[in-house]
Amino acid sequence: MNYREASLKKHTEWKGKIETVARVPVDSREALSLAYTPGVAEPCMAIHADIEKSFELTRRWNTVPVITDGTAVLGLGDIGPEAGMPVMEGKCALFKAFGGVDAYPICLRTKDTEEIINTIKIMAGSFGGINLEDISAPRCFEIETRLKRELDIPVFHDDQHGTAIVSAAALINAVKLAGKKLESIKVVINGAGAAGIAIGKFLLKLGVKDVTLCDLKGIVCDGNEWLNPAQSEVAKITNLSKKQGKLADAMKGADVFIGVSGPHCVTKEMVASMAEKSILFPCANPVPEIEPEEAKAAGAYIVGTGSSEHPNQINNVLVFPGLFRGALDVRATTVNDDMMIAAARGIASCVSEKELAPDYILPYAYDQKAHVCVAKAVAEAAVKTGVSKLHK
Amino acid sequence: MNYREASLKKHTEWKGKIETVARVPVDSREALSLAYTPGVAEPCMAIHADIEKSFELTRRWNTVPVITDGTAVLGLGDIGPEAGMPVMEGKCALFKAFGGVDAYPICLRTKDTEEIINTIKIMAGSFGGINLEDISAPRCFEIETRLKRELDIPVFHDDQHGTAIVSAAALINAVKLAGKKLESIKVVINGAGAAGIAIGKFLLKLGVKDVTLCDLKGIVCDGNEWLNPAQSEVAKITNLSKKQGKLADAMKGADVFIGVSGPHCVTKEMVASMAEKSILFPCANPVPEIEPEEAKAAGAYIVGTGSSEHPNQINNVLVFPGLFRGALDVRATTVNDDMMIAAARGIASCVSEKELAPDYILPYAYDQKAHVCVAKAVAEAAVKTGVSKLHK
Repeated sequence: MNYREASLKKHTEWKGKIETVARVPVDSREALSLAYTPGVAEPCMAIHADIEKSFELTRRWNTVPVITDGTAVLGLGDIGPEAGMPVMEGKCALFKAFGGVDAYPICLRTKDTEEIINTIKIMAGSFGGINLEDISAPRCFEIETRLKRELDIPVFHDDQHGTAIVSAAALINAVKLAGKKLESIKVVINGAGAAGIAIGKFLLKLGVKDVTLCDLKGIVCDGNEWLNPAQSEVAKITNLSKKQGKLADAMKGADVFIGVSGPHCVTKEMVASMAEKSILFPCANPVPEIEPEEAKAAGAYIVGTGSSEHPNQINNVLVFPGLFRGALDVRATTVNDDMMIAAARGIASCVSEKELAPDYILPYAYDQKAHVCVAKAVAEAAVKTGVSKLHK
Repeated sequence: MNYREASLKKHTEWKGKIETVARVPVDSREALSLAYTPGVAEPCMAIHADIEKSFELTRRWNTVPVITDGTAVLGLGDIGPEAGMPVMEGKCALFKAFGGVDAYPICLRTKDTEEIINTIKIMAGSFGGINLEDISAPRCFEIETRLKRELDIPVFHDDQHGTAIVSAAALINAVKLAGKKLESIKVVINGAGAAGIAIGKFLLKLGVKDVTLCDLKGIVCDGNEWLNPAQSEVAKITNLSKKQGKLADAMKGADVFIGVSGPHCVTKEMVASMAEKSILFPCANPVPEIEPEEAKAAGAYIVGTGSSEHPNQINNVLVFPGLFRGALDVRATTVNDDMMIAAARGIASCVSEKELAPDYILPYAYDQKAHVCVAKAVAEAAVKTGVSKLHK
């Protein structure tokens, strides 16, 4: 099926994938007097006396904007805020369907880091959390870091951390199947942009010791002149043996390959050079780093991609609805490492030992049980780490 | 019934008066591929090629944010953005119930005029129109004027124009009942803030010749030292006979009193000093300028208030849902005078000659027919004045 053509037709019919509905009656004089004037003055004054009450008396507790500047939409690049809207609306539909979260899309007509930060801070009193989306590197790092520091609601850049969490979940189960251990595997990540760096850092937090990043110019190694600031930073904690060379060099003997780069940059020979029971997640979209059939033919034990057309779709749809559901449920003030690790382990735990197989390492994106499981794990981690305003 | 107390209880139960829902299925691999990746890339690229397509392929065509800075919420004053949220949510619920418009509340943590303008401009690509709400004068004038000039979607400050339109609608029918003509009546408006000035200007556009504004300091007269810039401007087109004095002086012999000021500032004696078949709209909320019974006892022929507890509620709920419905339906690029006049006449026309009575000059706020009628009138006026992008 040609999804793109069919999708354009559907979007023309749909005229929007989300809508706002009233949850209260306003169809009589009395109903109006309660939901609107004059009655509404009382909840207003209650919040004026205690802003925290905005999480009880309005929808703030359940509301998350999906905010983009349209600079890194899917693999399409900088297509502008209006053109990013179909993705943001889709995300909002998924937020509701799988997390029960009221999300709405806000596409910003600016690429200025300070202006984006300021705009979001100015609006933050309306929301229970902030989902950043498809903002290009390196601006996305500064924007997320600053907002996390300056706001007291969860801020989450899905392209970095959603991707990292779901890749980690897939890896946890794949490694288990392969009879290996996170502590002793060698992982190569191709693509040292926002997603690749986030995956690398996250795997280290999860217990992986040997992570090497590669980019078009080669292996990311501390001291290399061509590194950008974000790469320089991650080079200090990855590739500790200070390997140099190209992707093919990095992949020799590696247990795991994770691709967040471009189409068909991995060859059969590279796969064949990996360790026994190799695990490959070529996640580039829409065309993977290597086709799954090819990787398997070259000896790969487990393959997962970003696409729904193959087994083991590694899709951050598995992360953000449940993660925000959990964070909002306990009125978390942030999203911390423990919450993200809990999300990854939560997703992995949704596939039972009995079900686990090389072609089934992750639950399906539309599996409601998985989202409930993520929400529960994240909420518990938030409470445990003391960032819940409801449960101390 | 104590609406305030009951309302607080209801708001605690409701936990939000609006929510976002998905309009499309996302519960299977195929559904996800159409609404989200990979299919969604195609509508994105279609909008990238032609931004106007964002009104066809996303919900933008039907989406309006209700934006406030929380500085002039109801009669409660500057209570802050979070505390303004219950009013904004209520407004969003009304937008959907009566206009079919998808509205969502955005409360801004800034009072800086330039920052508010800039924030709204940055977000404007996500919306089909902008509803400004409860922003205090004089900043609301500059904010609305600039946004109208700099954006190509309808911008509407409801506190000014919604109030003006519904007051004018009430006046059209009241004057008809009293056997008078708009061209020959004397109108006194008490309260020379955003709403009062907007009402005065709008009545002049509707054909009224003799309008006088008053404020706490007395009659607004060209040249008076105490006038602020907005009052100075309106003083040039109102009170052409250059009357001086207090409210009581202005009301002598007047046909119409419209109050957007404070509680109980009009006495029986003032009402008695008005012309025959006098019309009074003491709209201060929650306590009117004079109680309706008292005004009637002093000789008033028709009385309307802002409250649902009395006959003739003059409530801008009658305006904004239908006005935006009509503007969005024809993809209007602005809200112009003709569209606002059409809205006023449209509301007035919803009460038939046969129904028209001193205690029934306006349709009820929850009368769906009225909103449909406003939408139709506004859409027609937009097309006629050449501001519709769909119908040239």
